[in-house]
Formats: sequence, C-alpha cells, structure tokens
Amino acid sequence: MPTFSTVGIIGKRRDPNAVPTLLELLDILRTLGREVCVEDMTLSGAELPAGVPRLPRAELARRCDLAVVVGGDGTLLSAARDLAPAGVALVGVNQGRLGFMVDVPPADMRETLAAIFAGEYVREDRLMLQATLLREKRPQTFLAMNDVVIRNQAAIRMLEFESWLDDEFISQHRADGFIVASPTGSTAYALSGGGPVVHPGLDALTLVPICPHTLSDRPIVINSRQRVRITLRGAPNTVAMLTGDGQTAETLHAGESVEVSAAPFRLQLVHPRHYSYFNILRNKLHWGRGPASSDRLENT
Amino acid sequence: MPTFSTVGIIGKRRDPNAVPTLLELLDILRTLGREVCVEDMTLSGAELPAGVPRLPRAELARRCDLAVVVGGDGTLLSAARDLAPAGVALVGVNQGRLGFMVDVPPADMRETLAAIFAGEYVREDRLMLQATLLREKRPQTFLAMNDVVIRNQAAIRMLEFESWLDDEFISQHRADGFIVASPTGSTAYALSGGGPVVHPGLDALTLVPICPHTLSDRPIVINSRQRVRITLRGAPNTVAMLTGDGQTAETLHAGESVEVSAAPFRLQLVHPRHYSYFNILRNKLHWGRGPASSDRLENT
Amino acid sequence: MPTFSTVGIIGKRRDPNAVPTLLELLDILRTLGREVCVEDMTLSGAELPAGVPRLPRAELARRCDLAVVVGGDGTLLSAARDLAPAGVALVGVNQGRLGFMVDVPPADMRETLAAIFAGEYVREDRLMLQATLLREKRPQTFLAMNDVVIRNQAAIRMLEFESWLDDEFISQHRADGFIVASPTGSTAYALSGGGPVVHPGLDALTLVPICPHTLSDRPIVINSRQRVRITLRGAPNTVAMLTGDGQTAETLHAGESVEVSAAPFRLQLVHPRHYSYFNILRNKLHWGRGPASSDRLENT
Amino acid sequence: MPTFSTVGIIGKRRDPNAVPTLLELLDILRTLGREVCVEDMTLSGAELPAGVPRLPRAELARRCDLAVVVGGDGTLLSAARDLAPAGVALVGVNQGRLGFMVDVPPADMRETLAAIFAGEYVREDRLMLQATLLREKRPQTFLAMNDVVIRNQAAIRMLEFESWLDDEFISQHRADGFIVASPTGSTAYALSGGGPVVHPGLDALTLVPICPHTLSDRPIVINSRQRVRITLRGAPNTVAMLTGDGQTAETLHAGESVEVSAAPFRLQLVHPRHYSYFNILRNKLHWGRGPASSDRLENT
Repeated sequence: MPTFSTVGIIGKRRDPNAVPTLLELLDILRTLGREVCVEDMTLSGAELPAGVPRLPRAELARRCDLAVVVGGDGTLLSAARDLAPAGVALVGVNQGRLGFMVDVPPADMRETLAAIFAGEYVREDRLMLQATLLREKRPQTFLAMNDVVIRNQAAIRMLEFESWLDDEFISQHRADGFIVASPTGSTAYALSGGGPVVHPGLDALTLVPICPHTLSDRPIVINSRQRVRITLRGAPNTVAMLTGDGQTAETLHAGESVEVSAAPFRLQLVHPRHYSYFNILRNKLHWGRGPASSDRLENT
Repeated sequence: MPTFSTVGIIGKRRDPNAVPTLLELLDILRTLGREVCVEDMTLSGAELPAGVPRLPRAELARRCDLAVVVGGDGTLLSAARDLAPAGVALVGVNQGRLGFMVDVPPADMRETLAAIFAGEYVREDRLMLQATLLREKRPQTFLAMNDVVIRNQAAIRMLEFESWLDDEFISQHRADGFIVASPTGSTAYALSGGGPVVHPGLDALTLVPICPHTLSDRPIVINSRQRVRITLRGAPNTVAMLTGDGQTAETLHAGESVEVSAAPFRLQLVHPRHYSYFNILRNKLHWGRGPASSDRLENT
Repeated sequence: MPTFSTVGIIGKRRDPNAVPTLLELLDILRTLGREVCVEDMTLSGAELPAGVPRLPRAELARRCDLAVVVGGDGTLLSAARDLAPAGVALVGVNQGRLGFMVDVPPADMRETLAAIFAGEYVREDRLMLQATLLREKRPQTFLAMNDVVIRNQAAIRMLEFESWLDDEFISQHRADGFIVASPTGSTAYALSGGGPVVHPGLDALTLVPICPHTLSDRPIVINSRQRVRITLRGAPNTVAMLTGDGQTAETLHAGESVEVSAAPFRLQLVHPRHYSYFNILRNKLHWGRGPASSDRLENT
Repeated sequence: MPTFSTVGIIGKRRDPNAVPTLLELLDILRTLGREVCVEDMTLSGAELPAGVPRLPRAELARRCDLAVVVGGDGTLLSAARDLAPAGVALVGVNQGRLGFMVDVPPADMRETLAAIFAGEYVREDRLMLQATLLREKRPQTFLAMNDVVIRNQAAIRMLEFESWLDDEFISQHRADGFIVASPTGSTAYALSGGGPVVHPGLDALTLVPICPHTLSDRPIVINSRQRVRITLRGAPNTVAMLTGDGQTAETLHAGESVEVSAAPFRLQLVHPRHYSYFNILRNKLHWGRGPASSDRLENT
C-alpha cells in the first residue's frame, strides 16, 4: 500500500492569493496518484475535478492519511487541532514566507511531495495541549497546539492567579496574564513573554506569567506528564479571556480554574527530508546571520 | 507666613480602614494650626468640625498649598493628576504598607507633619506626562503621572504600532501594547514590561513595547523635551484601549495617534527629611536584604 | 536491616561555626543507632568518639548509605559530585539560612533524622551532568550537579561558540560565556543569565548564552537524553575557563569542544517529609510574600 | 575660512584591507583642497605624497579640525578618546558593514565629504565618560566613549559591589560585573546585559549589573550631571578588571572604587546629511524588516 494514499487539502481562509498554489497542489497530488479531498472552506469558488470531493474537516479527518496545509503557521495550528486527534499527518506549504511549521515553499511542492510519497521525509510527533475549563456549569475541554493563555480583557486591571503542579501549590502570580505553552508554542507568544525555546523533542510544558508584578516570577518548565492548574483569583466580578492558540476563546470568571496537560495524542508533522529544527529557528530568529546579525557595537 | 498654611485631605475611596487615620490626620493638622479642607469623597460618612469644609477637588486645588493623601500610590496618582496643575504639593501617608510615593507611616504623621511645617522636608519635583489623542473628532488631552499605555482589549490580536520621536521615525512595533512612562512610572508597569528604573532626577520618557514580537524591540529612553507619537496601525476595525495611570481610559482606533510629552508643570512631592529614593527602591524591590535576598545558589 | 545503617558526616570546609552543629549531629546519629563515619576534612581539630573513623571521601562513599552534609548548597554540590556515583544518598543541614538543597535547619536535625530513619522522607533523584573536554591530549571527563560553564577569563574579549545537539548544528553564539545547566542548576547561575526555572522532575538540559551579542539568542531547553557539544571558536590564542559548579576549573582553547550529557547515575537527595520544591522556591525567590512582595506601583 | 580645513586620517590598525580605501580617501581630501595629515600607525607601509605628514595622535589632535576614521566602531571609539578632548570632530567610514557610528560607506566618501565641506552634514555631540580609579596610590583618570566596566577575571567567583549616586547609597550588588554606559554605549555591551537603548539626545548614564544574583537588580538610568561611584567589596584578595570601552584595562582590588561622570567635553560626531539615529538602529537591531523580521509564530 502506498504511503499516504488519501490526501486532504486545506487552505488559508479568505486568501485569494493561495488559489493558484492550491490548484497546482491538487494537480500534483492527482499526478502522483493520490486520492484527493478538499476541505469545504478551501477553493470555495473553484470547480473541482470529478472524483475530488469537498468535505467538512471532520469527514476529511476520517478519510485522509495526510493533509497538505497551504498558508501560514496559524492555518496549520487550526488544522492540527481538528485533524491530529484522528491521526492525520500534516505537511505545511507556506506562501513564500518560511513558517516555523509550514516549511515547504510552493516551488518545491512537486519534488517534496514526490519524495514524501516515496517515504523520504522526516516525521516529528509534536506534543499537543488539552485544556479543561473547570467550572460548575458545563466544564469544557479544548485542544491547543501552541498555547493556552489567560489574559485580561479590559486592560485596566492586573489579574491574580494561583498555580498548581498536580496537587502541589506553585505560587500566586499578579500579572497581565498567564501562558501555558507546548514546545511548539515556546517560539510563539511565550517567547515574547520571556520564555525559553523548548525543543520539540522534550515533553514539557512552559508556564510564563505575562508582565508579572514580581520580578522574580520567572518562566517555569515542567514535565508534560504532570498537570498544571491555574485558578483566576480576584473580586467576584473579575473576568478574563481564555484562548487556545489565540484562535479559540472562552470567558473565565474569578474562582474558575483551567487545567492543562498533554493531550493523549500528538500531531504528526511531516517535513522535507533535509529538515532541521534549528535551521528554521536560525532563520526565523535571525541567529548567526554573519555580519549583519551583530547587535553589539564592535571593539575593532 | 507659615509653610503650607492651608492643607487638604484626600483619602482612598471606599476604604473604611482609612477612617481612623483620616480623623487623626484632621486633628493633627488643626492642632498644628493649619486651615484644613477635606475632599468631598473623603470621610463621607463622618461629621467634620466646624470650619472644615468639604470641597470638590477642583476647589480644593485652588485653596490649598499642600494636600495630604492617605492611601496607596494609586490614590496619590489620582490626586497628582488633579492637583499638580494648580501647584499644590502632595505628601503621602500609607496605610501600613510603604508605597513608592506614599512614604509616611500613619504612626509618624504627627512628627513628620510638624517637621514639614517647620520647613524640614525634602521636596522633589516629579515630571508628569501630558497626552493628546489625535483624532479627527474631539482631540482629547489628559494627564498621567506614571504612564500612558495603549493595550489590546480583546486579547486575541497583536497590535501594530508606529512610533516617532518629534518628526523622526523610530520603528514599527508588533506587540500586545505600548507604554510611555515617566521616571515615576518606570518602577510601575514599565518595569514589569522589561523597562529600566529611571531616576526621577532625569527628565526622560521611557518607551516600552509590551511582549514585542521582535526580540530586539527593546525599551528606549529619550529626553522628555522631545515628543513621542504612537500611531495604531492595522485593519480599519482595530481598536485598542488608551489609559492614563491605568485609571483613565479612552478607545483608540486604527489610524489614530497619541502624542506624549512632558506636562508644562510638575508634581511637587513632599517627603520626610530623611527621604532617600533608593532606600524606598531597596525596600520595594527586595534589594540587598542580606541573607534572604539570595536568589542564586551559593558556591560555598 | 534498618534504613541508612551507615551514615557519613561532611561539613563545610574552614567553617568553625559549623563545629557545634557537627558535634550535635554526631551525637544524634549515634543515639539513633547508626554507624557513623566522618569525612577527613571535617571536624579536623576535634577528637572523635571511639569507633567513629575519619575517612577520605572515596572511602566514605564506599562505606555509607547516606551522608549528612552540613553547610550551604555549595557544600552539597561538592559532596554530590563525590558521592552520587557510588549511590550514597545525601541530606543537607543548613546553618540557619535555607538553601535550595540544604533544607534541614539545625534545630530540626534530631526529629528529621529520626523520621528519615523510620522511612518517613521524600526522596528525589536529581539529574547530574557529565562533561567531557574533547581535546587531542588527555581528554578529560568531570561531573557537575548544577552547571558546566565556559567563561571568558580576561574580560576584554567576547567569545565565539558553536553549539550542536547530537549531530545537528544549533547555532553560533557570540557571548561572554555559555552555560549548560541541569534542572537543579536552573535556579543557580543560569537564572541570573536569563534562563527559566526547570523543575527537577523534568530530564532536561538548559543552554544559556551569557550576555549574548544577538538579542534573539535565547535560552534553549532540550531533552537530557540528547548530548550537547559546545566548541570554542576564535583566534588560535583564545582561551576560556571551563568550570563545573563554579568549583572545578580547566582551561579551554580555541578549537576545543566540551560535550555535556546526563550522567549515568543520579543524586539521591533526601528531604524532610513535608518537602515541597516550590515552597523552597517561593522562599528563595521572594515569590508571593504578600504585601511586601509588590514590585509594581499599585493602582489603588 | 573653509569648514574643516585640516583633516586627519586614522585607519583601523593591522587591517591591510583598509589600504585602498585610505589611499582613495587621501586623494579625495587633497582634491577637495584640504590640508591632510595621517596618523602614524596608519598606512604604515605606504609612501605618502609630499606635504602630507605622519603624526602621532596627540599631534594630529592639535592640528586637525576633523578626522576621518576608517574601520569599525571600535576604531572610532579609540579615536574618540584620543581626539575628542582637543575638540576634533570625527566622521566614520566603514569597510562595507554599517556601524553604529561609522556610517559612511567607502563608495560614498567623495560625495559625503564634499557635502560635509560644503556645510551639509548633521553634527551630533555625544556624551563621553570620565572615570577615576580611587585608590591610595596613583589614582588614575581615563576616558571612555561607550562604557566603563568592572568584570571578574577568574570566572569562578561572583563579585560584590556597592553603588552610590553622588552621596546617596544606591544598593549592593552581587553579580559577574557592573557596567556604567553612556548613551552611545547603551547599544553596545549594556544592551547584551539587559539595559535599555538610551537616545544620544539624553544626558544620562546607565548602570547595568551583569548577571545579577538578585533578579530585581535591574538597570538604572540616571542624570549624567550626577556622579556614580562603584566600590568593589569582598575578601582582601579579590581583584577585578576595570576596562574602558573594552579597550583599556586596569586592575581593581577589593575596597577600591571607581567614580564615573560625564567628561567635561563631548565627542563631535559628523554624519551625512540624511543621518537618522533610528534608521541605523533599525538596521543594526533588525527592527521592522518586514516579513522576515517576524520572530513570533503567526496566527494566520
């Protein structure tokens, strides 16, 4: 049986620039002998070839072994939350700008996909987050690939949190917000908040208070086999926004808690065969770019 | 003519714990031969002695030479914005917890005020900020003692800013928000955002992007004789919250700008005679507290 | 067979203040029916009871099940490097000032040790580092509990490094130095250098460039099953200092590399039964100390 | 009288690549009708035209109105210390890589110098530092353009400092070192140590502890009309290295102090007419470089 016999296509929403790439991708996949299905929000104006169904994500997840995501990292985050639970692998095609996860340039699609179907690729299993909003009515569970974030909505007031690792009290925090990030998310919002880069080969959660009141309230990295609980404190009318990957949102009230742990499944991310995590990082973070990367005045 | 012949009293709002201190203060001021007036929101349930008027802040500002503020630093920030333009000096009495600016413990009120009236005190002139919201309809000017902050309201989206120093372009910024702080405000929100401590003896504004996307987008300190302009960029429906000292709020829309400069007057802050700025800082930031202040594992 | 039947005593060197504690400890251990031996540099002036031998560390490591270390965290670091390879457990008694690892106050010695011998204690297995200086002549391997650090000696010149994770190139770094820290060491020098707190329950190494030239050259946390290699670059006469726990030192020359990985054994650390890692952290880092821990000016 | 009638030439030492640029510069200056003199370490192998003297820096400083410095920022730092006291203005020609201060590309030399001699240029007066090593024998005073730094020499031990602002105690510090930076130096070593960018239009000194033990020991910005004193504490045999611009070095012993203040003169820096401080900063710090400058994972 060929590798990845049924392949889904998911494009960035409302992005007309992606259409030519998506159509070319469709052609490439059919030429390479794959069953193809297209997400129902993708290529919405175009007529698809006979035998190429348009499917909602849930149905696409059931049918496909692999999905090619065309867009930015954000498009891939969204696809990961919807498709990873079904075990669909993802490969990301960017639109001319390298992403942390969408690492195939459109010009390389044909060659890279042919290699992938020939079994020549790097597969990475990325930890995903599972969060439960613990509250009296309708506790709610959701997934996140990058991070679960509690943030102030109304800008004026600092929030108060308490944090626990399993049943051990960590600390109280007074801050603008609180981030729980996966290794994948460590190079996203958590990095802006002062967190470290956490290699995807490490099963860890990173806790980052946002603009903490106490200067020694530093990021903490823990084992993802453990469970983090964050409780929002403060006056009874305090509300905060709880987001997953900055894409899904719930309201959190004083006294309510969020529990974050590793999801029971991982995202299977497919990379071109010469993939290097640090190569992408060097590119995205402007590391080691020779002369122009010098931020410090030289003594020469 | 005696020093500070007419003295106002301003208490923290809705704080019943302040009442005994306020009544004692009233007694001390009268004993020390001062004309006293009380802010109209202060001691609202209590009956005042004959000849002690309750006045709105604007009227109190016109009548008094000095106002004694009882509460936290936040109470003093608010009083500063209302009274500094009229040249009223302020002295702060804390409620048992040292503030950066409210530095007289209630137990020391009598002695400290007697000394102040005898001319034995330290006077500091603190730079205040003046901000103008530049927009087509109703441009608006407001004051701030600590900081002028633009923040995202809805937590999900990063904001985009452009900054100018007078007419020179500084940079674009992608961040959760942007702080322009006075030296006084440098130990407030700006410090949580990664800014430096700026001594009040320096006429400077500090610009601090909040959780900036670009890691090299660092705090910048400029001469307060210069004017900073921050423009909110982004899609036409982008809105952000513009606050002064975290206490006043306006809505800022994409395309609108805020201009911040030093106000034409300063807050006159009166301190006990042994006042030391760094002494308060050491206390508030836990500097140099001997053994227990050791955050790093010892090599001994 | 009783728990920990043979117990060693190790005291901080050249610290006469430790003598009364050490003598009391000796008495407690004998009262509790333990075979006791004393490290040969400890209690050097005192006469020991009959049957209590003075032993060099290597011999003490062979004979004891447990060693009680009296001193600071640094004393324990040194004991860990010498005793952990032989599987000797350590418990730390501080001299009146809580350490990250020496967490038994002298006044609690009797009660805590009785509980430990009754099996009531918390045992933590802490990851240790093993470093190999790769060079043509005499490659050298050493242990560290906290960190392996490469630092400039002569202050004037910035160092250049290259780093690899197993065989994958990480980046080049221009910095004052480079730290590879264990979770235990994450709260030591690495924290001062901007690294995160890494929980001891996570098998991770943290890489921290010291004062890096490039602002995006941030701390990286990796899986300790992987091997880090750091190469010193620069002109042929470049030399740097390579230290383990800030206590052992070697000279590193341009072109030479250090390889750091998890040691094949762990330190067995014995804590009082109510031990909480975060409780110690809150204390040492001044977290959540109620009112006085407020570093930010209040809006109240 | 023409602007800048006598012009000196100073090249980076031991850099044969600079020779063609230096010879072209010599030709340009003579063509533009200037009296030219060459620093005695510059163009050492070349034969100079008749009437172009080789002069030691002290003599060159007396004769010239302007010196053109060819090299990196380090070459300009050194020239500034030697020539600024005599009031000689400096303009910097880089060797193909933009510096913070050497901002004229070789290809633009002719046009830029012609414009400068026609009075079309931007002149900036940069604050310089003056440091005095206070010790019993031979107190010593030296200049620095960027920073005065005290650093540990032997890597193993943390240093202890005490700092004063004029006669007010600031704090004690336990750190790897301590930086006092000018605004010019704020983008050099101080930035790597966590300090802010300080605009050259602000007369300020920035104090930055290097890898401080206490996490709240943050950079402090003060008015340069004030005087900073740093005292090295610790055991009697403690020594540290005291450097100016990382180029000059002295040994500092426990108990000795360094006093740093603004020098009584400034460096007169000449820039091309379209000079913008922030333009150079954006370039050097990779700010706002459009797509590739995105360090945070996009939500798109």
